[in-house]
Amino acid sequence: MSVDIAERIMARADELGAISEVAENLTRTHLSEAHRRAAKLVAGWLREAGLAVWTDAAGNVCGRLEGASPDLPAVVLGSHIDTVPDAGKYDGPLGVLLAIEVARSFADEAGALPFALEVVAFSDEEGTRFGNALSGSRAFAGAWDEAWWEYADRDGTTLREASVAFGLDPRNIGDAARRPRDLVAYLEAHIEQGPYLERAGLPLGVVSSIASARRFALEITGHAGHAGGTPYELRRDALVGAAELVVEIERIGQDLDVIATVGKLQAYPGGVNVIPGKVELTLDLRAELDDDRDDAWARIQEAAEEIAAIRDLEWSATEFYRADGVACADELMEAVETGIRAAGIDDPLTLWSRAGHDAMAVADVAPIGMLFVRNGRNGVSHSPDEIVAVGDVALAFDAFLAAVRALAESRG
Amino acid sequence: MSVDIAERIMARADELGAISEVAENLTRTHLSEAHRRAAKLVAGWLREAGLAVWTDAAGNVCGRLEGASPDLPAVVLGSHIDTVPDAGKYDGPLGVLLAIEVARSFADEAGALPFALEVVAFSDEEGTRFGNALSGSRAFAGAWDEAWWEYADRDGTTLREASVAFGLDPRNIGDAARRPRDLVAYLEAHIEQGPYLERAGLPLGVVSSIASARRFALEITGHAGHAGGTPYELRRDALVGAAELVVEIERIGQDLDVIATVGKLQAYPGGVNVIPGKVELTLDLRAELDDDRDDAWARIQEAAEEIAAIRDLEWSATEFYRADGVACADELMEAVETGIRAAGIDDPLTLWSRAGHDAMAVADVAPIGMLFVRNGRNGVSHSPDEIVAVGDVALAFDAFLAAVRALAESRG
Repeated sequence: MSVDIAERIMARADELGAISEVAENLTRTHLSEAHRRAAKLVAGWLREAGLAVWTDAAGNVCGRLEGASPDLPAVVLGSHIDTVPDAGKYDGPLGVLLAIEVARSFADEAGALPFALEVVAFSDEEGTRFGNALSGSRAFAGAWDEAWWEYADRDGTTLREASVAFGLDPRNIGDAARRPRDLVAYLEAHIEQGPYLERAGLPLGVVSSIASARRFALEITGHAGHAGGTPYELRRDALVGAAELVVEIERIGQDLDVIATVGKLQAYPGGVNVIPGKVELTLDLRAELDDDRDDAWARIQEAAEEIAAIRDLEWSATEFYRADGVACADELMEAVETGIRAAGIDDPLTLWSRAGHDAMAVADVAPIGMLFVRNGRNGVSHSPDEIVAVGDVALAFDAFLAAVRALAESRG
Repeated sequence: MSVDIAERIMARADELGAISEVAENLTRTHLSEAHRRAAKLVAGWLREAGLAVWTDAAGNVCGRLEGASPDLPAVVLGSHIDTVPDAGKYDGPLGVLLAIEVARSFADEAGALPFALEVVAFSDEEGTRFGNALSGSRAFAGAWDEAWWEYADRDGTTLREASVAFGLDPRNIGDAARRPRDLVAYLEAHIEQGPYLERAGLPLGVVSSIASARRFALEITGHAGHAGGTPYELRRDALVGAAELVVEIERIGQDLDVIATVGKLQAYPGGVNVIPGKVELTLDLRAELDDDRDDAWARIQEAAEEIAAIRDLEWSATEFYRADGVACADELMEAVETGIRAAGIDDPLTLWSRAGHDAMAVADVAPIGMLFVRNGRNGVSHSPDEIVAVGDVALAFDAFLAAVRALAESRG
């Protein structure tokens, strides 16, 4: 039976995956026409599953089954339906589609549950269009910032204008915010954006926490000079210094089990025969624990100091993103683990999420838990090559359903 | 007396330095209106010094004093009057102005010389406008390539069109070419584009050879992937590989006394949270000897192979420039050294030129010699900060004049 459900989920992922704002690939950004069509489809599936459906002022599509009495605090199951450019079909939608199926399974017996059951399809996790990741779930968590309304997309349309055009009323954004007392828990299923489950040979995993992250823009300054005329001892070559730092960053990351990535690097002025006088680079740090992340940054700063001193360079760093790690609640990790065991997997793997998720934002107002589903292609993510196996989706459904049942029992 | 001459040279360098095609700095490119004004000024100075003057089909301004009999082979003194963008005043013009003063000194006694004496102000050494360095001196050396006429500047004007607009006749380009039998020697004075004389505390130097050079465009390819989801052991990070190579290139260069510079480097796709899948970089190699240069390249290739093998990367290199080293003629090095001693410097420094010069092209048709004049600011070149001391110019004049006298005596 769960195989039939998994096949429906796969078919619906295909159907959603065909809804794109561009012809050549899957790109579905916040408040786009494609988003409207996807949201409408999801709302229809929620209604068909027996839920009461509404769209909040942030564009999140919500569905609710009342529990044993009206207005009980809710267990919320969710994920997102927006995408990065040239995306895969499962990052976000898989969790929403699993949530819809779990809710459908409870539709007839919801009146016996000790909580209400909700499903949320968040509108904007990736932040692709307005550069503001997690805005849907931050509205849900009451963490909206009025300044965001003026954020503009690359055509100059502001979030406020796009919201109004979508039929939303910015004045009601506060109504999207949930109060902690109305929430029992938030559970999110998501395809793993990494290869750990695949490498362990396991279809499902319990998430322990969501990555602690910091991002920096670094600049290293030396002195530009002519390649021919400047001997090594007079050089202040910003690029060789930057290269030493890049190598050192990898070493420090490996040492401390922190993922440290230099994604952008460019040398200036960029003449073939000119010694680079300046290098700009970025650093992305992720770790399970904030302390490890911060230790890595401290060591990277020491390395930069040392290189700069030896090579007579200047360096500076500007932090432009910081998210402290968010731990999953013990009770919810246990529920997810119970669910995974119920799906027939004896020794569930617990792992931390290197990527960010809506659950990070929701953690402000509710305990969170996450179920990871094996990525079928070596962790390939944010790419049309992202795949998931139908058999893994069937197991994920069984586990997700059993996790909610476990919660109901422990609260019953 | 040579101090008066040096002061005239400095004043003329200022006068030429004020002739620019842009208001904000000194930029005087091939066949520009500024070039026309500078060429006219130089032609006037040559005439005033007593030389017969003409402009050849490549735009080189030439002046000639006949020797003991008409049509004797010539000793040619020269350098260039074009500049890079935002240039200094001495790179090129200093050699032309010294040559004019030396010729003026011989004007009354030229009839006693065993050779004719010529001065050439080459039109295009830097190649700034048409991307074709040394085109003036290559025309002089009979190494013109007809394909060059179609080279265009950034406004789309071809070299042919610009030549015609300047009043030159492309059909006569062959007349600019000199035959070896008409040339005794080529001597060029030039400001050092490096700090070696200044560091040795010496105003003048004998050039032994002009840099052997090769330039390559390198590409290193790995696999782009998400910073969060890809653990170190699955990464094929092209940037960390490139960084290791940049560090290694410096080490190899220092080891082999080869100047190896990575001037351009950029990582792609360049997302903050994306592991770089590709890096493009350039390599500029310069050495006194071709063998050293080629040894360095061989070792750099080995290093790239090793890094690529360890990190599962691909790499490729495309050579886009190659100039084998050009040796100065022993007889002319001796004449220059004799000249420097005559200027009162007992122990002349002999050094090789890390930068290219018109003499490289002229070497095809005549033995060459070069006199370097101390750069007054740590070797700063291709910059408005380039300076030379008037006292050094006085000594350079004395030495250059004495070098030509030494040649006359040895040939007399």
